[in-house]
Amino acid sequence: MPKVSLKGQQMPESPIRKLVPYAEIAKKKGHKVYHLNIGQPDIKTPEVALNAVKNADISVLEYSHSAGFESYRTKLSKYYREHGLPIDTADIIITTGGSEALLFAMGSTMDTDDEIIIPEPFYANYNGFSTASGVKVVPVISTIETGFALPPISDFEKLITPKTKAILICNPGNPTGYLYSKEEIMQLAELVKKHDLFLIADEVYREFTYDGDKHYSVMNIEGLEEHAIMIDSVSKRYSMCGARIGCIVSQNKAVMATAMKFAQARLSPPTFAQIASEAALETPQSYFDDVITEYKDRRDTLIAELNKIDGVTVASPKGAFYCIAKLPIKNADDFAQWLLESYDLNGETVMVAPAAGFYSTPNVGLDEVRIAYVLKKEDLIQSVRILKEALHTYNNK
Amino acid sequence: MPKVSLKGQQMPESPIRKLVPYAEIAKKKGHKVYHLNIGQPDIKTPEVALNAVKNADISVLEYSHSAGFESYRTKLSKYYREHGLPIDTADIIITTGGSEALLFAMGSTMDTDDEIIIPEPFYANYNGFSTASGVKVVPVISTIETGFALPPISDFEKLITPKTKAILICNPGNPTGYLYSKEEIMQLAELVKKHDLFLIADEVYREFTYDGDKHYSVMNIEGLEEHAIMIDSVSKRYSMCGARIGCIVSQNKAVMATAMKFAQARLSPPTFAQIASEAALETPQSYFDDVITEYKDRRDTLIAELNKIDGVTVASPKGAFYCIAKLPIKNADDFAQWLLESYDLNGETVMVAPAAGFYSTPNVGLDEVRIAYVLKKEDLIQSVRILKEALHTYNNK
Repeated sequence: MPKVSLKGQQMPESPIRKLVPYAEIAKKKGHKVYHLNIGQPDIKTPEVALNAVKNADISVLEYSHSAGFESYRTKLSKYYREHGLPIDTADIIITTGGSEALLFAMGSTMDTDDEIIIPEPFYANYNGFSTASGVKVVPVISTIETGFALPPISDFEKLITPKTKAILICNPGNPTGYLYSKEEIMQLAELVKKHDLFLIADEVYREFTYDGDKHYSVMNIEGLEEHAIMIDSVSKRYSMCGARIGCIVSQNKAVMATAMKFAQARLSPPTFAQIASEAALETPQSYFDDVITEYKDRRDTLIAELNKIDGVTVASPKGAFYCIAKLPIKNADDFAQWLLESYDLNGETVMVAPAAGFYSTPNVGLDEVRIAYVLKKEDLIQSVRILKEALHTYNNK
Repeated sequence: MPKVSLKGQQMPESPIRKLVPYAEIAKKKGHKVYHLNIGQPDIKTPEVALNAVKNADISVLEYSHSAGFESYRTKLSKYYREHGLPIDTADIIITTGGSEALLFAMGSTMDTDDEIIIPEPFYANYNGFSTASGVKVVPVISTIETGFALPPISDFEKLITPKTKAILICNPGNPTGYLYSKEEIMQLAELVKKHDLFLIADEVYREFTYDGDKHYSVMNIEGLEEHAIMIDSVSKRYSMCGARIGCIVSQNKAVMATAMKFAQARLSPPTFAQIASEAALETPQSYFDDVITEYKDRRDTLIAELNKIDGVTVASPKGAFYCIAKLPIKNADDFAQWLLESYDLNGETVMVAPAAGFYSTPNVGLDEVRIAYVLKKEDLIQSVRILKEALHTYNNK
């Protein structure tokens, strides 16, 4: 009987999916589960995007250009320019989600056994894309004590080897909610220039910043044109995760020519979703204003409620819609499973994502969980109430 | 300045895309170009699929299950069973096109430097997926003289090494149009069992067989459950290439569990396109009857016309909608470029795909082209008329 690949054996399981069977148990008991564990927003997709698909006049659903509709790329370039990013149509390849953009970025810049440095905790699927690409993740630890700020540049430099090809950041961060300052981005820029590395920035949460903080993109840095690769996606911006449309952006022509060969091999990104994504660019500003106000409210509510629980530390997020909370427990994996399997408060419980799955270093973040604030305020308040009671019960078992 | 990866440098350019700049030249001259070079059918997409998307009631375009809608997988299993294939819902993961299914199959079964044996000429993007996966393609030559039948099993055995993990076939074949007989599939089955290999079968053209020949699937073979992996797609079956929906199918539970980890990393296949694909299963049989009749007519017309040209040999295709034609020329690359750049018959010319790009062995198939019969009959007749005149002019330059 033929065996699966070593690579396949090493592919990590999603840290969230591991809990799914226990969520099933809770649901079978008739318990209501508040999902604090996933980044699937409840925000409505802009109607202009949905209507464009409804009204599309298609008789043959054809392949599109491998780089995506030219009309879409042109409008997207205009969108970026209006947001202060000097990105041309030719600097953009439309991908099947930010996921494929990450795969193209890794494939275009790294070979088997090359190394990529990523501040942790990081988006768990970076592990999957790295394994699939044969690339080794080298984590550099950021901590809840600093709110997950950029680790000292000297920490990066200690990890750089001849195999190091790139640094990958998520800004604002999933799972940390941290927004890198201009100064931090400039430090990274100097570092990658000094060591001749790529700086890959996953900026899919770019618009989700609060408190007036401004997002600073790697595409904004003069002199970084050959190093900077931006990953973007429509998933969160327009609450259309199911579209599976993203893009890889770079002014490095060799990188784009290489990414284009990966794009051609898979023929084209999905046509319906490109129609929706192109139309989504017409979304009125009021939509975003409402969404940001809503998320800011949710964040403030969640953080205020969490801070009321004795022994809980939380890094107040500046962007995206996640936070990492340190709980007064030893093992968040066990706690998260127990919440679903054995606990309820009047028939209700919560599902959280144990943060250890977002670290690459073993035995770090064991007492932390990631909480997504994608639920409405009342639900967040109730969720934290359940969490508080559950912590009390769990610690007095 | 950081460099692109070796893998990226090795990624092949599409053999068709290379000619695109020359097609632009022809179009700039005002010449009409008949596209015999691509597999984009002009057949209408079933209305039931397009209407399902128009009528979908979506307010939040959410991620789907990473394996695809359960409702879709269940109906797809039923579809396969009705076509004699014993495939359960759990044996199916919905992918972003057959392309992603191939990537998942390679990633789940092969590591860097492992080898995959593929009868050539083969679908050019197999090279791209192999390079992206770090896998080495080992070609085994099939010839126009046998109509591109399965090479002798002894030819395969000579190529098997400890690194060999799988054999990949396309059935019916792109670019050959060859349909493997039950006997040929059984020979391959014995071979992979003997050497403990996977047999990956790209069966996306399954429904496109003519002359009453029956397609024989690798999923039909008892005792091959642990070895067989089927690749499928809605692209050609329903003329919805732009949907980007396919699937990987296997009864090998370890393979499916591994492929699922790749599927989870990229979150989900596109939602709109899954809605269309699920609805497409309701396409009435009359649609397929009409399509097959149309393709059979086109094939018969094309082959009859090609056979009228002195010095042209063509392997009559039994399935799919391509054929390989051997032309009385030395270099089809040069000829194809000349057709676009320097030739016209009353303002019209043709674009063909030089077949060398479908061989992995260097300097094989230099005098062959792939012709897709995806145009209507009158256009095929006119195309071959142009080809005939062009060959005469080219050989008397």
